[in-house]
This record gives sequence, C-alpha cells and structure tokens, in this order.
Amino acid sequence: MSETDKAPGVALIGTGFMGKCHAMAWNNVATVFGMPRPRLEVLCDVTDASARTHAAAFGFRRATADWQAAVGDPAVDIVSITTPNGLHRPMAEAALEAGKHVWLEKPMALTLEDAKAMAALSAARPGQVTMLGYNYRRSPAFQAARALITAGEIGEPRAFRGVYDEDYSADPALPWSWRLTREGGGLGALGDLGCHLVSQMLALMGPVAELTAMTQIAIPQRPSPEGPKPVENEDSALALIRFASGAQGSFATSRVARGRKCRLQWEVHGSDGTLVFDQENMNELWLHRTGEAGFTRHLTGPEQPDFAAFCHGAGHNFGFNEMKVIEARDLLAAIDGAPNTGPDFAEGLAIERIIHAMAASEGRPVTLGEAT
Amino acid sequence: MSETDKAPGVALIGTGFMGKCHAMAWNNVATVFGMPRPRLEVLCDVTDASARTHAAAFGFRRATADWQAAVGDPAVDIVSITTPNGLHRPMAEAALEAGKHVWLEKPMALTLEDAKAMAALSAARPGQVTMLGYNYRRSPAFQAARALITAGEIGEPRAFRGVYDEDYSADPALPWSWRLTREGGGLGALGDLGCHLVSQMLALMGPVAELTAMTQIAIPQRPSPEGPKPVENEDSALALIRFASGAQGSFATSRVARGRKCRLQWEVHGSDGTLVFDQENMNELWLHRTGEAGFTRHLTGPEQPDFAAFCHGAGHNFGFNEMKVIEARDLLAAIDGAPNTGPDFAEGLAIERIIHAMAASEGRPVTLGEAT
Amino acid sequence: MSETDKAPGVALIGTGFMGKCHAMAWNNVATVFGMPRPRLEVLCDVTDASARTHAAAFGFRRATADWQAAVGDPAVDIVSITTPNGLHRPMAEAALEAGKHVWLEKPMALTLEDAKAMAALSAARPGQVTMLGYNYRRSPAFQAARALITAGEIGEPRAFRGVYDEDYSADPALPWSWRLTREGGGLGALGDLGCHLVSQMLALMGPVAELTAMTQIAIPQRPSPEGPKPVENEDSALALIRFASGAQGSFATSRVARGRKCRLQWEVHGSDGTLVFDQENMNELWLHRTGEAGFTRHLTGPEQPDFAAFCHGAGHNFGFNEMKVIEARDLLAAIDGAPNTGPDFAEGLAIERIIHAMAASEGRPVTLGEAT
Amino acid sequence: MSETDKAPGVALIGTGFMGKCHAMAWNNVATVFGMPRPRLEVLCDVTDASARTHAAAFGFRRATADWQAAVGDPAVDIVSITTPNGLHRPMAEAALEAGKHVWLEKPMALTLEDAKAMAALSAARPGQVTMLGYNYRRSPAFQAARALITAGEIGEPRAFRGVYDEDYSADPALPWSWRLTREGGGLGALGDLGCHLVSQMLALMGPVAELTAMTQIAIPQRPSPEGPKPVENEDSALALIRFASGAQGSFATSRVARGRKCRLQWEVHGSDGTLVFDQENMNELWLHRTGEAGFTRHLTGPEQPDFAAFCHGAGHNFGFNEMKVIEARDLLAAIDGAPNTGPDFAEGLAIERIIHAMAASEGRPVTLGEAT
Repeated sequence: MSETDKAPGVALIGTGFMGKCHAMAWNNVATVFGMPRPRLEVLCDVTDASARTHAAAFGFRRATADWQAAVGDPAVDIVSITTPNGLHRPMAEAALEAGKHVWLEKPMALTLEDAKAMAALSAARPGQVTMLGYNYRRSPAFQAARALITAGEIGEPRAFRGVYDEDYSADPALPWSWRLTREGGGLGALGDLGCHLVSQMLALMGPVAELTAMTQIAIPQRPSPEGPKPVENEDSALALIRFASGAQGSFATSRVARGRKCRLQWEVHGSDGTLVFDQENMNELWLHRTGEAGFTRHLTGPEQPDFAAFCHGAGHNFGFNEMKVIEARDLLAAIDGAPNTGPDFAEGLAIERIIHAMAASEGRPVTLGEAT
Repeated sequence: MSETDKAPGVALIGTGFMGKCHAMAWNNVATVFGMPRPRLEVLCDVTDASARTHAAAFGFRRATADWQAAVGDPAVDIVSITTPNGLHRPMAEAALEAGKHVWLEKPMALTLEDAKAMAALSAARPGQVTMLGYNYRRSPAFQAARALITAGEIGEPRAFRGVYDEDYSADPALPWSWRLTREGGGLGALGDLGCHLVSQMLALMGPVAELTAMTQIAIPQRPSPEGPKPVENEDSALALIRFASGAQGSFATSRVARGRKCRLQWEVHGSDGTLVFDQENMNELWLHRTGEAGFTRHLTGPEQPDFAAFCHGAGHNFGFNEMKVIEARDLLAAIDGAPNTGPDFAEGLAIERIIHAMAASEGRPVTLGEAT
Repeated sequence: MSETDKAPGVALIGTGFMGKCHAMAWNNVATVFGMPRPRLEVLCDVTDASARTHAAAFGFRRATADWQAAVGDPAVDIVSITTPNGLHRPMAEAALEAGKHVWLEKPMALTLEDAKAMAALSAARPGQVTMLGYNYRRSPAFQAARALITAGEIGEPRAFRGVYDEDYSADPALPWSWRLTREGGGLGALGDLGCHLVSQMLALMGPVAELTAMTQIAIPQRPSPEGPKPVENEDSALALIRFASGAQGSFATSRVARGRKCRLQWEVHGSDGTLVFDQENMNELWLHRTGEAGFTRHLTGPEQPDFAAFCHGAGHNFGFNEMKVIEARDLLAAIDGAPNTGPDFAEGLAIERIIHAMAASEGRPVTLGEAT
Repeated sequence: MSETDKAPGVALIGTGFMGKCHAMAWNNVATVFGMPRPRLEVLCDVTDASARTHAAAFGFRRATADWQAAVGDPAVDIVSITTPNGLHRPMAEAALEAGKHVWLEKPMALTLEDAKAMAALSAARPGQVTMLGYNYRRSPAFQAARALITAGEIGEPRAFRGVYDEDYSADPALPWSWRLTREGGGLGALGDLGCHLVSQMLALMGPVAELTAMTQIAIPQRPSPEGPKPVENEDSALALIRFASGAQGSFATSRVARGRKCRLQWEVHGSDGTLVFDQENMNELWLHRTGEAGFTRHLTGPEQPDFAAFCHGAGHNFGFNEMKVIEARDLLAAIDGAPNTGPDFAEGLAIERIIHAMAASEGRPVTLGEAT
C-alpha cells in the first residue's frame, strides 16, 4: 500500500454472480463500517468491452481483459478472484507472487494438489493475507451461534447434524457441461455446497478426526449435442463424522434436492442446550437452553455481531450480499494487522482435505490428519 | 372368538403410558370406525387393587394381577401387552401358545435372540395375528406420505434423511436405573426411539442392504444411592444407510437432545419431489413437486387416509392417542382376514436386526440379510 | 342420578360430526381421568335403524328415534345435544324441564330471543348444569395461555388480535341451502366460527364494553335447482372491540378464506409479554416475556393443564377430539359440585349478545351491557 | 443534471439509521442495476466534523453542516432527506424550490397541513420527481404479491388483514422525549409504523372509502428529569377499512407489542386464493390458490421482480437495506422519464390523510375523499 494513500487499492477479476457480490462489498465496506474507502483500481473481465461496462457500473477506475496485468498492477494491493474454479490456482499464485493480498472465492481449487500448492505458497508469504469466500461464516446469526457455543451457553457440544441442499442440478434435462467432469469441475456437490457446510462445521465443532462417507450420482448421464454424456462428480454425499473433541456428527449435501434453494441447515446438540440454524431463514437462530420451555427464535438484531453497523432495528433482515461486506471488513482488518478470521489458505486446505476424504471414502472410515 | 359373539374379547396387560393408550383405543375403535365393539374382558395390572381400579375406569369387565390367567382366559381372543420390555417375550409367547392374537408394544424384545424366538413362534402359528405398536406408521400424514411415494408423486426415492430425537435422558442428574443396562434395558436410544424411525424408514424406502453406524454414551455415569454407576446403552446413534433400491440415507437418534420432545423428523428426496415430516407437528406434511414454487403445507384432513373417520374438518388436528385407534382397527381387520399392515413379528424382527446392527457397527459397514 | 348407581346416565342426540365427537368423549372420559364411567343409556338419531347402528358402535345400551323419549328417560341424567342449530332450543328446554343436565353444542340458538329464553330457563333451575360445546377453550395450550395471563406472566393485557377463518363456503359453486338463510341458519360465519373466537376472547380478556363491526356477504347468490338464490347471512365479519378493562381488540372471522382450515388464531399483547396461538397448530403456544430474546415455542406437554392425563410425553400432540373429553370431565365435575368452568347458558347468552351486536353494527359503535 | 455529465449529482442530508441506508443505496444502485453511477456530491450532517467523517466513509466528494447550501448546490440534482420528521417540510420545500428532485424519508411531515403544502408545491413543479421512502413496497416479495394480485392469481381481492407491530416503546422506563408530543413527534405508531402498512395496503387493495379507528396510549406518562411527563401520541391503533372496491379490511399497529421487531404482516383474501406476508421473514411469500392443498412457501428468487439483479440464487435472502437500492433505481428511472412508482408527494398525502383520519376517528366512521 502506497505511503501517500492509506486506503488499499483493489483489483476485481470476474463480474458474474460472485463478481458483482464482491463489487457491492467493495463499494459498501467503508459506508457500513466507517473505514477508509478502498480505491477500486481495476476491473478485469473476459473482454475489454465487458470490463469497461462493468468498471463504470461497479465504480472501478480502470478496466482490462488481461488478468495478469490486473494482478500485477502497482496500484493494486488486494486481488478479488471470482472466476471459474479452474482459474483459482493460477490467479491466486500470480497474485501472491506479485505481492498482493488475495481474496478468493471458494472452493479453493479443483484438486487437492492445487490446494496444497496454494497453501504452501501462502505459508511462504506470511505478510500477505489470504481469505476464502466462505461468506456464510460471516452472517450475524452464525457469528452469534459461534459466540454462544464459545460462551458455554449450550454446554459441551456433543453432536452436529448438518446438511446443505440445493436443487440446481435436479432437472435431468439440464445439459451436460464440463462442470460435471472431475477434470473441469472437480468435486460436485461437495465442492459447490459441502465445502460451505464444512467451513461452518469446523468453526462450530473444531477439527475432524475421522469420517465415513458415501456419495451418489443420481443422474448418471446428461444430454449433450453429441448424445448423452456421463456425469463424473457426485450429486450428493452423506457422511458420519468423529470430531477430535469426541463429539459426533452427520453430514449431508445434495445438488438434486427438489425444492431446496439454500438449505444450509445445521444443529448443534450441547450438554446444556441446542442451537438450530437454516440459511433459507438466515435471520433466525433457534436456541434452547436447559430449563427453558422450548426453542426461542432469536431474530437477527443489533445485539448480534456486526448487525448494528448495517441496521439499528432487530428483525429488519440482513441479506446474503451483506455477508460479503463483513468478509471484506475482515480482510481489510487482517491486512491492517488484526487476526485473520479466515478461512485463509491454510484452513481452506483443511476444508479441501475433508471434502476430498468424503469423496474418496466409499463407505470406509478415513482418518484425517491433525491439520483438519 | 366364540360363536355366539362376533366381537373379539380383549385382555390388556399394563396400565401405564401405553396401557392407557391401548385402553383408549379399545374403547373407541368401534365408535370411530363403526365396527363391532370389542368385549373388554380382563385388565391385568401389578396388584389386584390397581387392576380393579383401572378395570373400572377403562371399562373392563374383570381385573387380575395374574397375567398368565389373563392370557389364558377363554373369553379372551386378543392380548394387549404394554409391560416393561423384559416381559415382552414371555407374555407374547404365552399368549401365542394360548392361541391368542397378540398386540405388543415396541420394542419387540430386549435381545435379538428373543426377537428371533418370538418371530419363529409366530411364524409357526399363522392363524394368529401379531401386531407391534409402531403407532407412528398409522398417522394420517405418514400414511399420506407413503401413498404419495407409492403413487410416484415425488418420482423415484433417492435419499432419506431421518432423525428421532428426544431429551428425556438429557439431565445428568437423572438417577441410574436398570433401563440403562444392556441386560435390563437392551439398546438405549435405538431401542426406545430409533426403532420407530426404522419402522417408518422401511415403509417409505424399502429394505436396507448395508449400514454403517456409530453410537455415543454422552453421560457415561449416572448417580445411584451406591454412588455413580455406568450407563451401558447408547444415548445417541448415527448411521449411513444403503437401501436395496440403491437409494442412500442418513439416520440419527438421541435421547439427550435438549429441547427435542418428539422430533421424529424425516425427508425423502425423490427424482421429482421432496416430502418432509416432523412428528412434533404431526398434522403437517410438506410436499414439493417438480414445477411447484416451493414446499406446500398439507394439513391433515379428511382426504387423507383414516382421518375422516375421526373428524370432517381439515386442520382440526389429529392426536397422538388416535394413532393407536387406527392400529387397533388394523389389528381387528387382520384378525378378520384383511392383510396385516404390520409390523407383525416378522417385520419386527427385521427392525430389530437393523437397530442391533447399528449398535454393533462401530463405524464399520454391516451388510443386512434379505429379510430386512 | 339414581341412588343405586353413582355414575350418571347419558342420552346422546345426534350422530354426525359432533355426535361422534361426544360419543368418543363419553367412552373415554373415565378412561382418561379415572372417574366413574358414565352409563351410556340411550342414543337418539333420525331413524330407528340409524340409531340402532350407532348405539351398537358407540356403546349405548338403547336406541331411539324419539328424542322426547330420550330426553325424558328416567335412567338419563345428562342429555348431549348435537343436532342442527334450529333444534337446540326445543331440545334443551325439554331436557331442562325433564330435570336433566344439558350439554349443548354451539351456537346456543338461532336467535337472540331463543338464547335469552334458554338462559332464563336455566337460571330458574340452578341445580341443573348446562354446558355449551366451546371445546376450543379446553385445549391444554389455551388453558395454559389463560393461566399465564392470570399469573401475570405477560403483565396487564392491553390488546387482543383475533381471527377465526375457514374456507368451507369459499367455493361459489356450493349450492344454496337453508343454512344460508337467517331463519334456518341464523348468523353465518359469526354463528359458526366467530362465536368460538368470542368464547376464547372473553376468557382471555374479560367482558366487552363496546364494539364496532362490519360484515360482508362475499358470494351473494348460490345455485339451487330453482336457479340462484340469495345468501342472507354473513360470509365474514370484522370488529373493533373495547373491553371493560380498557384494553382494545380487533376481531375477524370468515368462512370464505381460501386455504384456511381451522385458523382460530389470536395474540394477546400485555405490558410485559405477548402470547400467540393458532388452532391449526394447537400444540404450540408462543410466548415472549420482557427480557427474553424472542418468542419461545411451548409445545403442549404434561406440565400444561389436563395434558398429562392423556399422555406423559411433551410434544406428542393432543388432538381435536380430546378437547371434548376434557369438556365432558368439566361437565361431570360441575354436576358433582365443582364450579362450572362454562360457558353455561348464562355465558352462552353473553357470547350470543356479542355476535348479534357484530351482525347488527353496520359500522356504528354498539355498547354492550354489563353481562357481557 | 448538467449536460456534460449524464449521471445525476446527489446531496444526502442525515447520517443516522436511514442516512446510512441511503448512502448504501447511492453507492450500489449502479453496481446492482448497471446504470450510470450517481455523483455523490455533498454530504450534510449536523456538524462539519461529522459531515467530513461521514462523507469520507460514504464516498461523497464534499461535506457541509449547512443544509441550505447542500440543497442549493448547483452540482446537485437530487436531495436525499433523512432528518427528523420536523425538518421534512422545510428541507423538501427548499429542495423543490431550488429545482431539485427530492427523495424524502417517511413520514412525509408532522402535520396534515404540512403534507398538503408539500404536495401542492410538488404538484406545481411537475418536472421534479418526488419519492417517499416507503421502502417496504420495493421488496421482491411485496412486488411479487402485487403482481400476483394484478394477474388475478387470487381472484378478486375481498379482504385485507394487516398489522405492523414493533416493541421499541414497550419499556415504560424509556424516558420521555419530544418525539412523544404531537408538536414534536406528530402521530406516534401511526406515523412511524402505520403509514408503512397503509402504503402497502393501498398498493394491494386500492383506495380507502371509509374507516373507523380507535387508538390507545398504553403508557400515559414517561419519566423525565423533571418528573413524569405525559405522552401525547398513540402507542397503538386499530381500524376497520372499507375500500372503494367494496373489499373490507382490518388494520392494527403498535409500538408497544412486546417481542415484535418488524412485524409488518398482512394477508389478502381473494375469491380464488390467499396471500400472506410477514416482513420479519421478508424472503417468504405464502400463497394458496383454489385447488391447491395448502399454502406454498415462495422463497424470494430470481423469478421475482428485481431480485435477479442482486443474486442469481433463490433462497439466498434479500436484505432490508437492499430495498432502498431498488427505491433509488425507481427514483432514477422516474427522473429519466419512466412512470414514478411512488409514493410521490401526492400519494404520500393520501397516506397522511388516512393515518390522520385514524388518529381522529375515536370509534366513529370517517369518510375519505377520492384522492385516497
């Protein structure tokens, strides 16, 4: 970061679903949290024309179709990477090698080897912050849940029950694409959805010691212009988890669960209470504590972490995109010297180890290393 | 059944939670379904005094503290057994040997060996009907769910996610009892709760081919007058299931889930829809079918099986005890020659095989035989 | 009641929806509450054949098609009247004049004049108990709500918001019938549904001082074999209420509310908390008290009044028909000398005054007398 | 708007709850909708220091404590006014007189006279767009509800049931303030909350012909350093509504409803269906249509108006602040010549007429003019 300008410079690569979400976050992180406004230096998209259009709308000063130029831009301190998964490794490595901080959408990489290499590079550059886009960890309800557990409000956590189901692949008429191959798409539901659930599970329950999983390809073939082609990555997965703490858990994810839209749902059973959450109603946290009559609906409100900066009124509903604003704040704070709330690339590798272990288990127990 | 009286004679053994529930069912099965009223011949309880008091209240003609006399009573055609689990085998065997039909509360028996012996005796007496008290299979919503699946409304079932959680053992101050031993109490949460979930799962998904499970004793010791004593049966269990159909499932049960009262909750994911149910709201069934906007709340109503006999009005709420009235009707119908809707002792044995396999798995896959 | 038999003798008139519900209650009130079993003496239905069939199924000793004979039967102490509303007055009066206790389904009568006459007759015979079938006041959740208010758990009640909506008349193709006339059917939604809401409102909030209401006939004509005929009684009604306590309330009822099945839903706002209930989920009561985070779901359970007699397990779901068993118990207790929990005919008249005032208000304030 | 710069220049007055919300909207309206980015010219706050701090955080070029200077700034085309209600009239009038477009938070003004004057001034300047901050009308679910009604999906709307309850004034220990006086605070719950419900009601049901209302001051005195002082404006209000269409409605609002945080909840009963909404779960719309089994939960998703611009994924949750981004888009579109989706000052006056009629009714019917 240049001496004359305390605010960091940002490059954003990608303008799709998550690209726009990053753009909203970069525009509002200072508005919301009262920090120095980041300089939105350069926007990178596939074509120059698209980059220019989006740069104008997103409030970036310059536009380019050359991601390497963006990554190497001297005015840039942070690179936001929101491109297809196969580009995560080269872009993140180039950004790290150019001395930049990296904000990378999940999943970290297509393969476990890629993730290991990226984590190794990041470890070698401790002064550069890495942050993965596990935005569901930022929501006020999730943060409140974590704080309640840490404070002992539900006693000792003994069991975790988690699912993340959507239905975006449920229609068998959806055409085959490279996303459904191992090489092009990596893991399936585990890589798209399951990794989010793992990221929350680790934050709530601590490291995984052992797991047993089974996966399913519910729709083995998809139509293509050349005729039906095989689907190579899983439509759903189930797992049993043994945590290092001694707690136990169940885990499920599916991309073919009809009617489910963003059902990232879990419960934690403690010795003195139970917490329940469902991302489809992300402004509700349900808590029961010993001695209480039943479950109480805690609506997101200003007494929950980070909500008050957005709104003074409980029950006024925090939104999906706003989680990314908190993530940007956490990234900027880490760059400024605060502890990295993560997941950074090291924790990201732990998440990858777990979902790859699930994909490989085929019903047999797999022991995880200490890092996870 | 005597020639001079078409209505069957009933003996009821036990006057506790389930004893009273059977008594209500015996009093109302004819009221509700317009069948010949069963003759309530003899009530058996631990003492003569208690038997007399309850016989008067429950509408039974005679009272006894001698269960063998009750079982052998020539006016009795059907024996309702609602005693502690350790008495299930001797009473059921005596009743069968006396030529009676048997209505037995779950779980079938303390040990798998007991269940096998009982199933063998029942198989040797095909003219005598056996029925196990898996009352949750009778509820209008459950029956409707099963009918929807059979009719193909959600397409091919691919995944099952089920839990049955309560919190009756969550308090660590609850004293030790023989129910917490293997010898006296058999399985723990699997025997009390899990077997209900298995009974529903089998009805919805068909036989189990293989399972992997882990169990937990959350509270290893309980206080007793002689000091803390060890708990021998599981407080909770988790399992992955591979069904014979190729579908997959997850399974969880706990008796230490704080705040859960009767959370027998499951969902079935089909190729063309999803069904969701929770016994704590037993009058709701949630259904999503391809092309619909979301999940629709189906309130129990007269268009659902067996509801109309109780009430003409949808949304007027069917109750827990009323499931037992349907069970009595099914038992009487089977005695009258209709197909036994079960679980009879043969299917009960299949359920026992599954929960004992879960208890024994310790994280390793267990293959189930054809019967299950 | 005869000297030689402590248990009261019962006549039941009617075998439809509510007739069967009374029959279930008469069969189970002793089973559930451990009281002397009532003698089910005589069942009366429209034809001898139907009476005989139902007497056999419902467990009554004798059958008749002559309601006057049933009412005058010397073995009968209590008359259950579940016939069409137009017969309520003559049957209730005959039963009272024959010295019987009367259990009468709501609404009390077709006209306010009828209700006044019935209340006067009842007042003249203080030794005979009258009870109206406002069964929704018996549910464990409602009783718990009332007890919470009485105990001051929500402070001083300030506001009531209540609705009772169903959709049984929403289909414009439903044919015209005498029930849709003033003379044959009395009030419409107010008489069928609104009176239930009034009965709960009075129990929760105390007497009404003043109200302003408007009504609507949403479907002014219905088909009949002779062509369309006019509907004379209201499809829906709305009211503002000023209670004698100073509290205020809103009130709404409809029989044409598409998708509503038994939405008897209300909330009470107190100075220190809020209670919310919906009969469609009759096993839930939602309570918020000052200092609590949000609303807590109280599942019906054995700590609530009268639930434990039916079931030991919270969350196991109490049913619609079981409210009538409690009502029977309350009636028998009143006959035995306990205070009448009502509504008796005097309170029934107060309810009638209110719904007739609503029907007549046409947007102008109506002051209610002290009795209401 | 200057010729050389197509993007409008903006002045924002106020940096509190709604000031920040406007700032977020101004920063993101172009990001989300791909429009020319507004020029954030000048931020006005009470002190120069605060104005400078917030201008830096909110991304405004200049700062001032002189609102008249901000309003008259030649680089400014649009003035966002988010100050206390008593300043609404002078600021809005000054802005209009300076030739600016005006975006004003609700309620429009303290008194009906003020609102009339403002509407008159606006009517005299048809080229200048006025927009009131009735943001709840912008939410995707609300827009979808309105579109469903317009499309006839629930048939002819017959009844409206609406409430808007919060509990921000429920604590009797909250000190007295000028907001609780007529002169300083105008109406109470009707001005803060009720006007939002009116704005939705009008959009769903059309004009109001007549209403009857009652209000309540639940906590008549509040503590102040000089001792208890009287509260002058209503804590709650109830109303019956007769719409010009012939439909009927009930209306309730309270600022002392314990446990309610943003319960802006309504249902519309149509001849062929029912719609239900609750702002506390603003991402759900519940719809029942004739022939469907029950109510279906419609999760906010990209098929709903304006959602897709924020997020591609259904069920990913739209947030409170994002409604304001849509409002900004609507304002900019109106400035660009599109129809004003309102409420503009004319419709705002209609809303004020209704809430003032409610405040004045005291239980007597009030006829509304044509404009409402």
